Amino acid sequence: MRTRISGGTVLGPHGATVADVLVEGERIAAVATPEQAADWNPDETIDATGKYVMPGGIDAHTHMEMPFGGTFSADTFATGTTAAAWGGTTTIIDFAVQAKGTSLLSTLDKWHEKADGNCAIDYGFHMIVSDVNDTSLKEMETCIAAGVSSFKMFMAYPGVFYSTDGEILRAMRKATETGSTIMMHAENGIAIDELAAQAIAMGGTEPLQHSLTRPPELESEATGRAIALAKVTGAPLYIVHLSAAQALAEVAEARDQGQNVFAETCPQYLYLSIEDMAKGDFEGAKYVASPPLREKHHQADLWRGLRTNDLSVVSTDHCPFCFKDQKELGRGDFRAIPNGMPGVEHRMDLLHQGVVAGEISLARWVETCSTTPARMFGLFPRKGIIAPGSDADIVVYDPAAKQTLSAQTHHMNVDYSAYEGFALTGRVETVLSRGRVVVSKDAFHGSTTHGTFLSRDLCQYLN
Amino acid sequence: MRTRISGGTVLGPHGATVADVLVEGERIAAVATPEQAADWNPDETIDATGKYVMPGGIDAHTHMEMPFGGTFSADTFATGTTAAAWGGTTTIIDFAVQAKGTSLLSTLDKWHEKADGNCAIDYGFHMIVSDVNDTSLKEMETCIAAGVSSFKMFMAYPGVFYSTDGEILRAMRKATETGSTIMMHAENGIAIDELAAQAIAMGGTEPLQHSLTRPPELESEATGRAIALAKVTGAPLYIVHLSAAQALAEVAEARDQGQNVFAETCPQYLYLSIEDMAKGDFEGAKYVASPPLREKHHQADLWRGLRTNDLSVVSTDHCPFCFKDQKELGRGDFRAIPNGMPGVEHRMDLLHQGVVAGEISLARWVETCSTTPARMFGLFPRKGIIAPGSDADIVVYDPAAKQTLSAQTHHMNVDYSAYEGFALTGRVETVLSRGRVVVSKDAFHGSTTHGTFLSRDLCQYLN
Amino acid sequence: MRTRISGGTVLGPHGATVADVLVEGERIAAVATPEQAADWNPDETIDATGKYVMPGGIDAHTHMEMPFGGTFSADTFATGTTAAAWGGTTTIIDFAVQAKGTSLLSTLDKWHEKADGNCAIDYGFHMIVSDVNDTSLKEMETCIAAGVSSFKMFMAYPGVFYSTDGEILRAMRKATETGSTIMMHAENGIAIDELAAQAIAMGGTEPLQHSLTRPPELESEATGRAIALAKVTGAPLYIVHLSAAQALAEVAEARDQGQNVFAETCPQYLYLSIEDMAKGDFEGAKYVASPPLREKHHQADLWRGLRTNDLSVVSTDHCPFCFKDQKELGRGDFRAIPNGMPGVEHRMDLLHQGVVAGEISLARWVETCSTTPARMFGLFPRKGIIAPGSDADIVVYDPAAKQTLSAQTHHMNVDYSAYEGFALTGRVETVLSRGRVVVSKDAFHGSTTHGTFLSRDLCQYLN
Amino acid sequence: MRTRISGGTVLGPHGATVADVLVEGERIAAVATPEQAADWNPDETIDATGKYVMPGGIDAHTHMEMPFGGTFSADTFATGTTAAAWGGTTTIIDFAVQAKGTSLLSTLDKWHEKADGNCAIDYGFHMIVSDVNDTSLKEMETCIAAGVSSFKMFMAYPGVFYSTDGEILRAMRKATETGSTIMMHAENGIAIDELAAQAIAMGGTEPLQHSLTRPPELESEATGRAIALAKVTGAPLYIVHLSAAQALAEVAEARDQGQNVFAETCPQYLYLSIEDMAKGDFEGAKYVASPPLREKHHQADLWRGLRTNDLSVVSTDHCPFCFKDQKELGRGDFRAIPNGMPGVEHRMDLLHQGVVAGEISLARWVETCSTTPARMFGLFPRKGIIAPGSDADIVVYDPAAKQTLSAQTHHMNVDYSAYEGFALTGRVETVLSRGRVVVSKDAFHGSTTHGTFLSRDLCQYLN
Repeated sequence: MRTRISGGTVLGPHGATVADVLVEGERIAAVATPEQAADWNPDETIDATGKYVMPGGIDAHTHMEMPFGGTFSADTFATGTTAAAWGGTTTIIDFAVQAKGTSLLSTLDKWHEKADGNCAIDYGFHMIVSDVNDTSLKEMETCIAAGVSSFKMFMAYPGVFYSTDGEILRAMRKATETGSTIMMHAENGIAIDELAAQAIAMGGTEPLQHSLTRPPELESEATGRAIALAKVTGAPLYIVHLSAAQALAEVAEARDQGQNVFAETCPQYLYLSIEDMAKGDFEGAKYVASPPLREKHHQADLWRGLRTNDLSVVSTDHCPFCFKDQKELGRGDFRAIPNGMPGVEHRMDLLHQGVVAGEISLARWVETCSTTPARMFGLFPRKGIIAPGSDADIVVYDPAAKQTLSAQTHHMNVDYSAYEGFALTGRVETVLSRGRVVVSKDAFHGSTTHGTFLSRDLCQYLN
Repeated sequence: MRTRISGGTVLGPHGATVADVLVEGERIAAVATPEQAADWNPDETIDATGKYVMPGGIDAHTHMEMPFGGTFSADTFATGTTAAAWGGTTTIIDFAVQAKGTSLLSTLDKWHEKADGNCAIDYGFHMIVSDVNDTSLKEMETCIAAGVSSFKMFMAYPGVFYSTDGEILRAMRKATETGSTIMMHAENGIAIDELAAQAIAMGGTEPLQHSLTRPPELESEATGRAIALAKVTGAPLYIVHLSAAQALAEVAEARDQGQNVFAETCPQYLYLSIEDMAKGDFEGAKYVASPPLREKHHQADLWRGLRTNDLSVVSTDHCPFCFKDQKELGRGDFRAIPNGMPGVEHRMDLLHQGVVAGEISLARWVETCSTTPARMFGLFPRKGIIAPGSDADIVVYDPAAKQTLSAQTHHMNVDYSAYEGFALTGRVETVLSRGRVVVSKDAFHGSTTHGTFLSRDLCQYLN
Repeated sequence: MRTRISGGTVLGPHGATVADVLVEGERIAAVATPEQAADWNPDETIDATGKYVMPGGIDAHTHMEMPFGGTFSADTFATGTTAAAWGGTTTIIDFAVQAKGTSLLSTLDKWHEKADGNCAIDYGFHMIVSDVNDTSLKEMETCIAAGVSSFKMFMAYPGVFYSTDGEILRAMRKATETGSTIMMHAENGIAIDELAAQAIAMGGTEPLQHSLTRPPELESEATGRAIALAKVTGAPLYIVHLSAAQALAEVAEARDQGQNVFAETCPQYLYLSIEDMAKGDFEGAKYVASPPLREKHHQADLWRGLRTNDLSVVSTDHCPFCFKDQKELGRGDFRAIPNGMPGVEHRMDLLHQGVVAGEISLARWVETCSTTPARMFGLFPRKGIIAPGSDADIVVYDPAAKQTLSAQTHHMNVDYSAYEGFALTGRVETVLSRGRVVVSKDAFHGSTTHGTFLSRDLCQYLN
Repeated sequence: MRTRISGGTVLGPHGATVADVLVEGERIAAVATPEQAADWNPDETIDATGKYVMPGGIDAHTHMEMPFGGTFSADTFATGTTAAAWGGTTTIIDFAVQAKGTSLLSTLDKWHEKADGNCAIDYGFHMIVSDVNDTSLKEMETCIAAGVSSFKMFMAYPGVFYSTDGEILRAMRKATETGSTIMMHAENGIAIDELAAQAIAMGGTEPLQHSLTRPPELESEATGRAIALAKVTGAPLYIVHLSAAQALAEVAEARDQGQNVFAETCPQYLYLSIEDMAKGDFEGAKYVASPPLREKHHQADLWRGLRTNDLSVVSTDHCPFCFKDQKELGRGDFRAIPNGMPGVEHRMDLLHQGVVAGEISLARWVETCSTTPARMFGLFPRKGIIAPGSDADIVVYDPAAKQTLSAQTHHMNVDYSAYEGFALTGRVETVLSRGRVVVSKDAFHGSTTHGTFLSRDLCQYLN
């Protein structure tokens, strides 16, 4: 099966070129000038005239059917990856979650079991390390050999995922030895829990308190602390879901010094704010995630960070909980609201608005949403680029189309949209996953048995 | 004429892929997997097995036959571009030099006259603006229309190229209006001239004084001042030949803030130091350039800057003067030594040593020496990338070959090498310029009538 | 003549103590507990119960009868020093202004002539160096021997006071040699003149343009440049009338590094803003001074600087021009408005409002307005402290009194008040200058022949 | 009893004045010119001609007979305060140490019991809070009312003094409410314990490991974290025994921003280094304290910090353990070496060396060693200044005398000197404590029943 994508503008992390793309089976076989492409003899041709032809999106931070506070995030691998595909994301890296007292390898097995045969697109895993001990540290090596080369730790959520600085330091040493990456949820959870208890004690129970008790200073403090521990140990560090200008400043300073420190942000921090959390009728609960939504002025700093590459990646931290029955668990005590928001479907579109608004260039759009996550997490050049030999994960994107986001129309398995009513410019037209057209115009042609596990290499940015 | 470059590792600004490249006439027609490439029917095949296939180098800062202090830099466009080709550089951007009292357009004409029909590779021009007035400001627009979209000014060399802050501000306003770039030689020449006069008054006449009277603080001061003027006016700013850690810090801070500030460094600042300027028998004069060579510890900072992208480009500031008769003009008074060093031939090789030493990645080598200058100076995607439709400026590079630099063997028209005896790993094997093999192994197959003028667009990095 | 000041709270730079003060002749003879003071046998007693007893104010930056743009500042030494005394200031340091082509020594003679026998309080001189050459540099030594140990230079006012960076560097070298201080008007006047010309060209003639064409960036740039030149030469540097947050940041950074860099601000930057310059009917001209009044948000930063000691001194830059006939010279072209504002009378009171508002402590009030200028400019311990042996320059201040500022009631020779209608808490009650009561309640008992010239030592803060 | 101290140079935090001092009973009655002092009719006169007359030293950080790791620091209040007096220190502030499970008030009672009637000089207490709970938080108020207005917490020593960030935050809230000060031992003890365990596991048992496992990054991290928590809560923060340049940078940045953050350093960090810890025969154990001695280059930064006031106070952290039997507990495992060094006797002399060497001014000597601790800890103007009404805690210091430090001659109850053989310029000649001569030349005239408890007010530096 040979498919020619003709007449489009091929986007890469460096800019745009006009070229045709030949897909042969699951991979890209050639990129050529239209003249040269005329010699091809494709089985099928996709006309991309006036469209962008870009590498499929890579969402490096999702939580499908994740256990949290007695419930599970609402998207299964099947529903979540299907929604991702609809939005032009052809790879997710999801988190396997070690429960305390269990091993990393059994955790990995369990997550393989969940995902295997249930994904519409390719997927990889990061490993959440909740229980640092001699065994789990040793298992990190096995995980890496098994294609899981990044390990997430939490400075938040005491009693659940929280690791002490000593445990972090031990894991970082192992990361340094193996060249693997420590991903960090950087909020000072110990201090936050105290602030939250104080808020409750003073009668503050509503969703807005979630944000007020997690001030930016406690994100930047933890970010700086993680950077210091990484400096002491030499470990590569990747800060997940950075939300606050002050935390960005910590990252920028470390990066100026050449330390292997990287950070991602998420669309919700670019487009939403603490004002959403103040909505009445418990509506604010829809926006409860950690770190919390911030004052609006942080948005401009985050966009600037994306331009300066102090924020290298945009992920979603997709972790949907339905408003009904799930978010509602926290009525009366904001601490019981499941933390997380839906978003895997809309990342590519939302970031394209940044292009439209002049916040980022086309090149940065592709870089932050696809090429950089591929290089960051050892998937390049298999993913993240339109190049011969790479997987044919390709999005044909119509930059002029219009759409309006809504829970009525989205494909994620959650009963609300955080972006309800947002009117967007640009829309995914066709999506190929490993050479197969999975989305075309308004139809889904994929299958949840199509996606395969991606064994990942180490980060490709290390100095 | 169709040429297939087969079996190589294709390097880009993002990393490496294994692919074959098809050249058709002057341009790249296709990049494909070897399997797919088997269908091509080339007239000629270049076997690149075990080699890098990379976009030709772009040296964005050269001075061929430049008038300076009553003499001319020793390379003509013919000799200089030939030497460049030998070293894997397929594009230079040279400086047209406005003499006070003359117009920009007549200057441009004069430089076209010099270069036209005398270049072995393609070339563009920046314009040095020495005389800011209503006419020359207006002419900036015409220059841009004529493909010269960057304007260099000097905070050094009072009485020669020096512009006042008011003049800089006027030119920057015009740059902002037109989207063009101001390139800045950032040294406080007024203060430096005073220090130099004091040194002479105290009997300090030797070449080393050149460095001592141009301290890093006067480079960082001027860098910060240029950044401030650019901030006031909104102009894109490109700092040429940054040499000092303190100046780098100024650039990094501005870039963290998202200002359109860019900087280049040069191989001489990465490999040579003030110790070279202290060599006896007037040997130090060989290393007299401005800014001067610095204390060795600056080198580590500059390498770090290349990694962090606070230094985006490596150029040579190639401006050779023979030791005999030219450099010797300054015996007895270091101020009379012509400022400049040869280097256009060795940039790609010298920076490859950084790859070998682990200072930079392969991707950064290509990025700093080719892709970024192309995007920075409006040549992309015509230059700077291996992609369909791009000019077939291609270097086949043997990363394992050995060579030793020497004035005996180099091709630049200058009687010494600043890197005499340096033993290097890696060497250019084949060079194509617009599809034509101009260097192959140890033979030059090019012609000084081959190179064409490149009309450039605006910088592609602007926020 | 022995005077006892009894029952007051004696303020010093470190805080408050309850003590009686004995004045014998021109000097303080003793400070003692009331019990011990009971043994004194004074000729006169001033009851200071419930009042502050503090060292007289030192205004280190005034311009009496200064030539500027064809006119003279409106206060003579007689009227200006009388107004100062009314406001609790017992020492001024005024500026002798070298005219280009004249010598420093003749300038000093001329200023002695103006001031001698015409001052109500003691006075010293700084020297404005407008003409840097071998002679004037040599004369700096003579000035220091004559008690003038600080030299002001201008980075603004090209063609008038402006010095080039080379001239500044020469003078700084001499300052380093002699331990004297370079005071700097840090604004990039070259760039500012260009901006002003552009504004005029676009029809912007009103007073507000004065501020718009002198943006904070051009103050911070010049501040940073002065700091760099001081670093290269080793000279002590004192930034006069700092007005912008960005310039403060430059000073703070240098001070963190231990460089001998100091700065003053003025009441007008703490209380007035660009909004005043926008007043209609040419009223804005009343507020034209350089640097200009800034956006209001700078005020909080300046107060913080006073607390952190990055701003060490509060002076007035008193340079009054009447609205009528003087300020009005600039109707139609803001560039012709004489630069300067009245203020010598109200500094102590205005800064006391900072105490009332909690912006600064009592100790910092005394420190910034009296003790620090004394130490900074070599007058300590003769001035700036209530201590035995010190000059009996003493203010008895009623912290609870109320007053309203107005041109109707002020004693400065100028037809408007920049603070018209300001209602203040606190008021000077009694002022002694070298033991003589010159102001008592609402009466002036001084004489303009009383003040004597103060020969000053070097700065006492140098590292 | 009236004592006149005549002919000396009276030192204060602002500089020197020539004056006589009259002591009446326990307090200073007057400071006067020698002429005026001639009227006094003293019972006794101390001739201070050629000497400094300065306020007695205040050592704000001592640990007398402190329980640590199963032993006690070797100086009792009696021996320790006697040694302090010998060295010109007339006030100590020692730490009452809450044991977990006990109350603050019972702790305070216990320490009163220890000290009462056993001190040669006046003393106050800080309270170490080891156990944060509702009761102890409430007791903080009672402590403040009882004259103990500062509370020390530890980010180091898990399982002993360590407080979590949540506990720190609770105590800080209380500090904010009450205006009291949180003192912080800022080292990341959790991470350090892990590094120490790793060192032991790899066979590193010698004293030097104490320093290697407590890297500067873990001091600066904790310092930054304490600052962040203080910012969130608004609490005044005082960093004890700052030792590392990186930690100083954190403090400087917070102070530039106007936050109520203060820091002290200690003589051992100014004069000793990690090289001392590498001494053989377990000699390094003599220098084991926390934070540890650092690389020598930190010393210059600390001296600069003293000049810039980013380090406001010099204390000793006097906590002596005999080499024999005490330090030796750690043979075979550096973690068992009691942490602490002797020093209370030599602080004034050691810092005078900084004056001699030009590192600090006379004014800063007095300020950092006496006036500032008095103001910082609510003792001013009773202590820390030569002024009428203040306690007559006075040192007559001979700046020209010579002495050599040695365990043979010192008065501290410990079998070694950390400064053995140091040859010093300057020496205490006479010491008065509350009017009583306790040291005169080479004789001790004091009594360990003389010292009284000082009830302290709040910090006087708060913004």
